[in-house]
Amino acid sequence: MKTLNVGMIGYGFMGRAHSNAFRKVGHFFDLPYQIVLKAVCARNEEKARAFAARWGYESVETDWKKLLAREDIDLVDICAPNDVHAEIAIAAARAGKMIMCEKPLARTGAEGEKMVRAVEKAGVPNTVWYNYRRIPAVTLAKQLIDEGRLGRIFHYRAKFLQDWTINPDLPQGGTGLWRLDVKVAGSGVTGDLLAHCIDTALWLNGSVDRVNAMTETFVKERKHVLSGKVEKVGIDDACAFLARFSNGSLATFESTRYARGHKALYTFEINGEHASIAWDLHDLHRLQYFDHRDQGTTRGWRSIHVTDGEHPYMAKWWVPGLAIGYEHSFVHQVADFLQGVAEGKPVGPTFKDALETQYVCDAVLKSAQTGKWEKVKKIR
Amino acid sequence: MKTLNVGMIGYGFMGRAHSNAFRKVGHFFDLPYQIVLKAVCARNEEKARAFAARWGYESVETDWKKLLAREDIDLVDICAPNDVHAEIAIAAARAGKMIMCEKPLARTGAEGEKMVRAVEKAGVPNTVWYNYRRIPAVTLAKQLIDEGRLGRIFHYRAKFLQDWTINPDLPQGGTGLWRLDVKVAGSGVTGDLLAHCIDTALWLNGSVDRVNAMTETFVKERKHVLSGKVEKVGIDDACAFLARFSNGSLATFESTRYARGHKALYTFEINGEHASIAWDLHDLHRLQYFDHRDQGTTRGWRSIHVTDGEHPYMAKWWVPGLAIGYEHSFVHQVADFLQGVAEGKPVGPTFKDALETQYVCDAVLKSAQTGKWEKVKKIR
Amino acid sequence: MKTLNVGMIGYGFMGRAHSNAFRKVGHFFDLPYQIVLKAVCARNEEKARAFAARWGYESVETDWKKLLAREDIDLVDICAPNDVHAEIAIAAARAGKMIMCEKPLARTGAEGEKMVRAVEKAGVPNTVWYNYRRIPAVTLAKQLIDEGRLGRIFHYRAKFLQDWTINPDLPQGGTGLWRLDVKVAGSGVTGDLLAHCIDTALWLNGSVDRVNAMTETFVKERKHVLSGKVEKVGIDDACAFLARFSNGSLATFESTRYARGHKALYTFEINGEHASIAWDLHDLHRLQYFDHRDQGTTRGWRSIHVTDGEHPYMAKWWVPGLAIGYEHSFVHQVADFLQGVAEGKPVGPTFKDALETQYVCDAVLKSAQTGKWEKVKKIR
Amino acid sequence: MKTLNVGMIGYGFMGRAHSNAFRKVGHFFDLPYQIVLKAVCARNEEKARAFAARWGYESVETDWKKLLAREDIDLVDICAPNDVHAEIAIAAARAGKMIMCEKPLARTGAEGEKMVRAVEKAGVPNTVWYNYRRIPAVTLAKQLIDEGRLGRIFHYRAKFLQDWTINPDLPQGGTGLWRLDVKVAGSGVTGDLLAHCIDTALWLNGSVDRVNAMTETFVKERKHVLSGKVEKVGIDDACAFLARFSNGSLATFESTRYARGHKALYTFEINGEHASIAWDLHDLHRLQYFDHRDQGTTRGWRSIHVTDGEHPYMAKWWVPGLAIGYEHSFVHQVADFLQGVAEGKPVGPTFKDALETQYVCDAVLKSAQTGKWEKVKKIR
Repeated sequence: MKTLNVGMIGYGFMGRAHSNAFRKVGHFFDLPYQIVLKAVCARNEEKARAFAARWGYESVETDWKKLLAREDIDLVDICAPNDVHAEIAIAAARAGKMIMCEKPLARTGAEGEKMVRAVEKAGVPNTVWYNYRRIPAVTLAKQLIDEGRLGRIFHYRAKFLQDWTINPDLPQGGTGLWRLDVKVAGSGVTGDLLAHCIDTALWLNGSVDRVNAMTETFVKERKHVLSGKVEKVGIDDACAFLARFSNGSLATFESTRYARGHKALYTFEINGEHASIAWDLHDLHRLQYFDHRDQGTTRGWRSIHVTDGEHPYMAKWWVPGLAIGYEHSFVHQVADFLQGVAEGKPVGPTFKDALETQYVCDAVLKSAQTGKWEKVKKIR
Repeated sequence: MKTLNVGMIGYGFMGRAHSNAFRKVGHFFDLPYQIVLKAVCARNEEKARAFAARWGYESVETDWKKLLAREDIDLVDICAPNDVHAEIAIAAARAGKMIMCEKPLARTGAEGEKMVRAVEKAGVPNTVWYNYRRIPAVTLAKQLIDEGRLGRIFHYRAKFLQDWTINPDLPQGGTGLWRLDVKVAGSGVTGDLLAHCIDTALWLNGSVDRVNAMTETFVKERKHVLSGKVEKVGIDDACAFLARFSNGSLATFESTRYARGHKALYTFEINGEHASIAWDLHDLHRLQYFDHRDQGTTRGWRSIHVTDGEHPYMAKWWVPGLAIGYEHSFVHQVADFLQGVAEGKPVGPTFKDALETQYVCDAVLKSAQTGKWEKVKKIR
Repeated sequence: MKTLNVGMIGYGFMGRAHSNAFRKVGHFFDLPYQIVLKAVCARNEEKARAFAARWGYESVETDWKKLLAREDIDLVDICAPNDVHAEIAIAAARAGKMIMCEKPLARTGAEGEKMVRAVEKAGVPNTVWYNYRRIPAVTLAKQLIDEGRLGRIFHYRAKFLQDWTINPDLPQGGTGLWRLDVKVAGSGVTGDLLAHCIDTALWLNGSVDRVNAMTETFVKERKHVLSGKVEKVGIDDACAFLARFSNGSLATFESTRYARGHKALYTFEINGEHASIAWDLHDLHRLQYFDHRDQGTTRGWRSIHVTDGEHPYMAKWWVPGLAIGYEHSFVHQVADFLQGVAEGKPVGPTFKDALETQYVCDAVLKSAQTGKWEKVKKIR
Repeated sequence: MKTLNVGMIGYGFMGRAHSNAFRKVGHFFDLPYQIVLKAVCARNEEKARAFAARWGYESVETDWKKLLAREDIDLVDICAPNDVHAEIAIAAARAGKMIMCEKPLARTGAEGEKMVRAVEKAGVPNTVWYNYRRIPAVTLAKQLIDEGRLGRIFHYRAKFLQDWTINPDLPQGGTGLWRLDVKVAGSGVTGDLLAHCIDTALWLNGSVDRVNAMTETFVKERKHVLSGKVEKVGIDDACAFLARFSNGSLATFESTRYARGHKALYTFEINGEHASIAWDLHDLHRLQYFDHRDQGTTRGWRSIHVTDGEHPYMAKWWVPGLAIGYEHSFVHQVADFLQGVAEGKPVGPTFKDALETQYVCDAVLKSAQTGKWEKVKKIR
């Protein structure tokens, strides 16, 4: 079997999630390539070496440009913070590497457009790690929609609620906290959390035409880890928006890091003419499904325990009733991506798919400024 | 419309529940009789008068024999403690009154047999207030079983869990606490709580052949309210038993007043070849239903919100989505009983039905003594 | 005890709910007045007589002006459709009657202002039947907020989802369907359902400063029952809006009659600095509560079964674990209102409180037209 | 770091679960040894080679005696069917190997005793894969009990419900179906499923004194895969038993493969004087906890989402809110076992711990025969 050599840039939370996926996928899926963890790249050589030792990367680099220059790297996985996605991805595309880029694609649509142009020009396989599409319950939702079970869609609603930044003494910036630093992250919950909700929504329910948003920064100033000074907080702590999809359905989206009791509660619900679907990340192995065509007296929301062999991806894992978790969504993405590479077919979400999410984020952030409905830029 | 004059004996918790049912039923159901609350009877005249004033009883009695002797009483409702059920009911039957008797029918099967003989000899309409049969979700369960949705039954399990007697300083005996006094109550959780579970089970799943039980009294001595002395506790604080139904299904039953966190958690589940059903009293307006014949990927437990017009009894109440509560089960029992009286048809649970429950209780308590499987006496 | 004579105008769904409350409240609550159901008024005399017979009203009227002219009426209960609230209420105030008016107060803030002026000028006790405030779990939420358990509030979100108008063959207008006729109802889900959400929100979380809304009418034309012709549908089938409260918290509100699987799912959630609260009408006897100050490893959302004696109103009903339902919220409102009357204290929601809800509705409907943030008119 | 060479016997469902654990554990836990997958052993060489290739075992064996004879094997992992556990484990102990044995320890207590003697005589580290102890929520339950949060224990109840053998056309015997063949499995649900429940119970609640059981075989005959003939089914399809623990608490246990709607619903609940705990495998990442010492009006069952860094094992995985699954319990067991080996400390469940479970199973199966209470043999 042909090998496929991976070079990873970054080694944080996502570096672990992706490495685990690369390590694990071949034990459960029949892959068209044998994955080799060739190199990991990070500015801090010591940390890079420790990470390489733990995960079995064959070598380390401290300059991503050197990594991209290596001929023995087939696929570049970008796990660095948002502000360097564009530069690295464009260079990687020019170097002819396949690219798996952590979400969001970029800080803005403008950055993203350059990235899309680069991968399209280079003709390299590319994907963005919007992993939640590949939670089996979410994939099942997509199947049910594609089968036409819901009929005309009236409503879509999604939320991503967290509570980890309520403490005003939490600083911003630096490792682990760059998500609070607007210069690095680009935005707050919009790019970090709503981007996930938007990606799923575009996949399940099609394009968004226009949005009307509000944002808030509850804690206005935080000490910056790098400068050591109290600085204005530039990110959005919370964001909610109304939306209209091209299919005529209405939507509400909301995200915050100030919702006590919710650690990572991503939830969506879709109401169609015939049936409705709901899902949440805190019980990710279940899909809630209501079908009005069920006989009347026994009609009810069904709690589907998505662990059967006939459910998406689940035949590869254990037996009915035994749950998989968060990390498996990354495994599925690697499996699907490599299959697509082997077959020469794009596998969503591609950079282009992710650009559409970026356009929605841009419109959301703009609307929060203007206080008006803003149109979402159409993907060409 | 013909009137039907009610005479109630007792004025405690159940006196309120029944009075509310009598008062309310005519506003929502089309009855064959106009109910008149003619008299309430209690030894304490002052309390009887207060109760009569609040609920609109036309008169009071302090001697139940006088109540039974009154010609203007058509129906006697027995809400007195268990130890006087038999004597009153037998006298009421002899006096030709219709009888609604609070559960359990009696303290023992032997007492119950005399009661059944009395009502059958007198030919008077009779029922026992096993009200949970008429929670709409429970009635729906019965319908689904009768429609054959479950197929062959493999398992039945029921529990009734409470936590109100954990405190060892709680005394026994007297008003409100006679349930802890074995002389008055006859038994502890077996007659008080398991009797409910058994009544439902016999109704839904047919006869029980044999049982194997254990009981426990966790708090061995409690001060007696009437004697003022610390006395041995004679009731069962907890009881669990295995059972085999005549239809070949296996069952577990359990009840206790020592289960922290459960106030009145009566729950049952039935597993059949094709479908399963589960219900609990803490969310009494829902029925859980799993049908294996549903299409595979969307199979799941359905949470049926039993509030639609086509659900049992619900067309009489509000609109879909708006729940009724505990008290309504009593209203339904009055409505059904009066309809049966008008049509000359017995309405379950009759005294005879309740005697079967008593036989199971007897076998349970005997098995707890012998440590062996005990056969349940067959109803003639 | 002094009697209090009730005259009811209307006999539909709400006529039943209110009559049941008047009939029942004295059995469970110690009231300062003895309620007498003196008269019911409806244009259709036959139906009025049938209603009077069922509920025990002493007399009937077919002209509400005659009812108001009667000296033996102390309290007028307005259950007629929205378009006549103002006229009747203003006349009732002038006639010196106490007024209980079904929600929403009026079709518009302008109408509502006249009503408020009328009752204030007349000095008559008044209330609007926003009954959900008095579901015990909702009242408990209010208590927890008033005790300061949540700390600074960051988020409020509410939804009221139904699915009963999805069928495009459902006509508009006439008895039972006047809620779909804009001329009678004034608006669709905004006045019918969101008004409930707004009333609760103002009570729990204070004033709303501004809103940004969208509405949609999914079924554009429906046959009109009265005209027999297909007519344009003027109501909003769905409405969602963003809001900012005066306390700095952000909110999302949504209502629709096109959400498959939801019959009457009113739900709200509040996220505070220390704790969060959530409730929904489909399981109205439970309150979800998360307190971050709980010890770390055992922190979790608590499902409070609001049936204990120490919970609001519950000492009046049954015993712990035994649920009450939808109808009881009306009973509580009568009890509280009469207590207020006896003490000479206003009991919320007064007409003035309900006017604030109307102002929010007005701003919502206006914003749906302008596509901009609209300020909510301040209550004087 | 010192290496630790693993030799695995068997390659089925559990072979995969264990191999995944060995492969994965070092990426997330800091281990005292570097695990090397040295050899896998199976009678079918082709399948063994395929398994070795997929999981990276360095070599294959087709005779387990040869595997035990190899000097380069430090740890033997027994994943073969129940009927060969004893022979292999005893030989492995004699060969001085550390042993990880799949549950149940053996088919009977008598077999198990020999195994315990063998490992104790040899002084080799040993454990049995009762993996559910190391689901973080279950481990948290153990912590809470050890902290004394529950106080005196009154009740324990456990169930393990499945529905995969309802179809009477399912054959018995052979790969994947040896669990239905009594000669290989030893028993049905008792050894397969109840053994899990008993292991957890002994760990959480101490010794069981006596039991009273019933078993049933619903499908009496099934075609045997190996013989090709219809043969009597010797296993128990369902088993329920009453139990009394040494600490005075009462218990009910039940298991079946005939409970429609339940795939692998292992659930337990413990009721103590002060607090109660409940858990189920279908939502394995949650622990339900009720603490009566919470303030009254806000007392309720807490749904603890066991995904925080301070929860057992969770600091090693992702971030709060992101669930792990079934497979991770095996990873935890490897990590704990190796730590114990390095420190020279036994890590439960040892063979001796598992023998106690076997004794309970023996008493259960005997009681099902005798219809009486049977004492559980005491562990020396």
